[in-house]
This record gives sequence, C-alpha cells and structure tokens, in this order.
Amino acid sequence: MSPALIPNYELAGKQVVIIDVLRATSSICVAFETGVDKILPVSTPEECMLFKDFDFLCAAERNAIKLTGFDMGNSPFEFKHPLLKGKSIAFTTTNGTKAIKMSRSAGAEQIIIGSLLNVDAVVSYLISQHNDIVLVCSGWKDKVNLEDTLCAGAIASALNDHVETNCDATLMAMHLFKGMETNLEFYIRQSSHALRFKALHQAEDDVAFCSKLNTVNVLPVMQGEYIRNIQLNKPA
Amino acid sequence: MSPALIPNYELAGKQVVIIDVLRATSSICVAFETGVDKILPVSTPEECMLFKDFDFLCAAERNAIKLTGFDMGNSPFEFKHPLLKGKSIAFTTTNGTKAIKMSRSAGAEQIIIGSLLNVDAVVSYLISQHNDIVLVCSGWKDKVNLEDTLCAGAIASALNDHVETNCDATLMAMHLFKGMETNLEFYIRQSSHALRFKALHQAEDDVAFCSKLNTVNVLPVMQGEYIRNIQLNKPA
Repeated sequence: MSPALIPNYELAGKQVVIIDVLRATSSICVAFETGVDKILPVSTPEECMLFKDFDFLCAAERNAIKLTGFDMGNSPFEFKHPLLKGKSIAFTTTNGTKAIKMSRSAGAEQIIIGSLLNVDAVVSYLISQHNDIVLVCSGWKDKVNLEDTLCAGAIASALNDHVETNCDATLMAMHLFKGMETNLEFYIRQSSHALRFKALHQAEDDVAFCSKLNTVNVLPVMQGEYIRNIQLNKPA
Repeated sequence: MSPALIPNYELAGKQVVIIDVLRATSSICVAFETGVDKILPVSTPEECMLFKDFDFLCAAERNAIKLTGFDMGNSPFEFKHPLLKGKSIAFTTTNGTKAIKMSRSAGAEQIIIGSLLNVDAVVSYLISQHNDIVLVCSGWKDKVNLEDTLCAGAIASALNDHVETNCDATLMAMHLFKGMETNLEFYIRQSSHALRFKALHQAEDDVAFCSKLNTVNVLPVMQGEYIRNIQLNKPA
C-alpha cells in the first residue's frame, strides 16, 4: 500500500507490479499505446534533463506540477501526441519512479507497469507466468492512497481464481474495489490526490481519464534500464 | 495502517489512539474493566520480567504465544480474573507496545488505548477534547492488518460528523468498516492474524471476543509511564 512498506515483503524472484494511477503508470500506458519506443525512469529532474542530449524527450513532474523546461509533465494527455511514436522518453515523477527503483533494489524478478487502464493485459500476463506476485502501490510521499489501492484491488480480484493471498492489504484492496468498482471515478475524486489537483486547478480531466478500466491494451515491463511494451498485439 | 507509516504523519500535540485488536489493546481494555490499577508497557520480555521484583504481574507474548515463566500472555480472558483487581501489570507484546513507544517518541500529546471493545468510550472522549486526532494501527510486524484497520474505521466513522479527514487511509478504513460492520467476526476470521492463530491452535475464542463492538466501558490513556483508566463511570 506504500513504498515505505516494501521492506516488509520478499520481492526477490517475484513479479512486481508498480501502480501509480494518478498519474505515472497511467501516462506510461498511454505513451506505449501512442507507440513510444522506450521509457527511462530516472530519479531526479536534473538526471532527466541530461538525457536531452541523447535524443530523449524529457518528462518531469513534482507535487502534481509539470516542471519548467521539460517537454512533458505527468498528464496522460501529453503522452497521446502522434509525434511521440518511436521516441524515447526520460521520465521522473514524485512517487512512481521511486517505487520502481525500490522494487529493483529489492531484487524483483520482473517489474510490470500497472494502472486501471491496462488491468486485463497485466492480469492475463501474470496468469501465464505462474510466478509469485507482489503489487506495489506508489502512494503519495509514502502515505497510502485510495486510487492505487483500488487498482491493486482490481488486479487482485481478477487474479483471485488463480492465486492465493496471505496478505490483509490484498484482502482490503479487493473489498474496496468490489465496493467501488461501479463508480471508480466518483470515489477517486474523493481521494486526497484528486483534492490536491482540484486545489491546484490541475489535472482534473486526468482523474476521469485515469479512473477508467481497460481502455488501453499495453503491457509495459522493465527490460534492463528501460520500460518497453511487450504486449504481443500492440498497436501497429 | 502500520507503525512503519508513523514517520509520514505529524503526531506532535495530537491525540493518538493506539489500536491492536488482536490482542494487546483489547486485553488492556479488559484488564481495566476487571479493575486493574495500572499497566506499564515495556519493550522486551527481559525488561518486563524485571518488574516482578516490584510487585507487578508480568504479561508477555511473542508471535501469538504466551512466553514461559510469565503470569499472563496476551489473551483477554487472562485479564478477566478477579484477583487482578487493584494490581499493576508490566506488559510486552509483538506489535502493540511498539506502536505506543513510537507514538510517544513522535511527541503525541495524549495516547489513548482503542479496541473494538471500547469504541464508544474513545469516541465520546475525543469529541469532548476538540483536538487533532491520529489513529495508529499496530499491524503485524509493520504489515497492514484488517482488524486494526476495521477498528480505525469504526472510530473514524463515529467521529465523522465532528471532524474532517484529509487522509485516504481513513477513507478506506471507514469504507471497509461500513462494508463489514454487520459481521465483523466473520471478516476478522479471514485476516492473516486470525489464520495464524488457527494454524497454531491458539486464541481462536479470542477472535470472537475481540471482534465485538462496545462490550467494555473503559478509557485507558497513558499517564507518564503508565496506562490508567480515566473513564469517569468506571466499574466500582
């Protein structure tokens, strides 16, 4: 439910799904639907900007705001532009890239990018792999958040006939998803992060967009330093 | 939702409710209903045993099991014995005493002991105090657990007309409680800790006992090093 809880779980050798619904992993899914070639998650805006010299587009967000001088921030709509097709992007965000880096350090066998937008693609792949699974919610500065927990609940619920869980956080996420699945946007608009967007007059359309289930058929995974889409039937 | 998340919250100057439904805070509530004078939470079994020389009864549990040589473990039924009336108890448990110590270190203004058994007493007192409130779930070895989250949801739901929350964990706890309140024992029996008891053939009656709302009218709070019952209409 938070990157701060990662040390309590064994990630080594397991498939780890990183979830940051508002908005990093949603935007990564959209980028690959657009046809982006690869995404490099980096820790800091300074590191991100260095890749400009190597023909990367650079995307950076902190505290829900796009940073000045970067090509993109963290809105999924910015990643829809057709000119992004075939490009490489260096990307740093408040919470999502931290969760990816921590999971790599903890020895995850494979890191998969999950959002509400690509639940079906993630679940089908996980079922085919027959490995142990950890769902990592990126949260907000180590606090638990609603939208990532709901996404974990959506994935866990779809996996429920295929795997066992011994984790109360998973039980709770599944129960929350069951109670809220018919109106995800309504509930996610009550989350602290959606209220933060509202106070900043930022990203309010993003909340609706990121709350929709299975609108994008991509499967972004880490391969070496990069995130790439390994979905077989990816868009032409 | 876990002691590991305490560093993300400001506790200084606030009223902090410590929750460890299975079983430390439930047992503390029962002890005060029995008429225990005071309880000293200590970190280690070794430290706990030292107080034997100072006319304390000593209670110690680790990993759901009562430790050898101690007067009591961590079952609420052990704290019902009439001979406990007026006594002092030194008490160490796997998770509950850790949450108390961390909250003190973080500068909590007042530490209140909450369980499902005394929700009404805790809520009435908090409403009367008009202070900011943090609900701390003791969890299991820093993992999130269901039963403490449900208790936090019960308290937050009862406070909901009197306070505002800006925390998604609270929203989630309230939603979980709303979905499960008519059958708390049923859901808590599915929790990882209840399953741990079952595997150990331990404490299965405790789960039913600790899942009942408002069976005990006590208000244990920290005063200096001790927990004492400050409920005005406490048992004679």
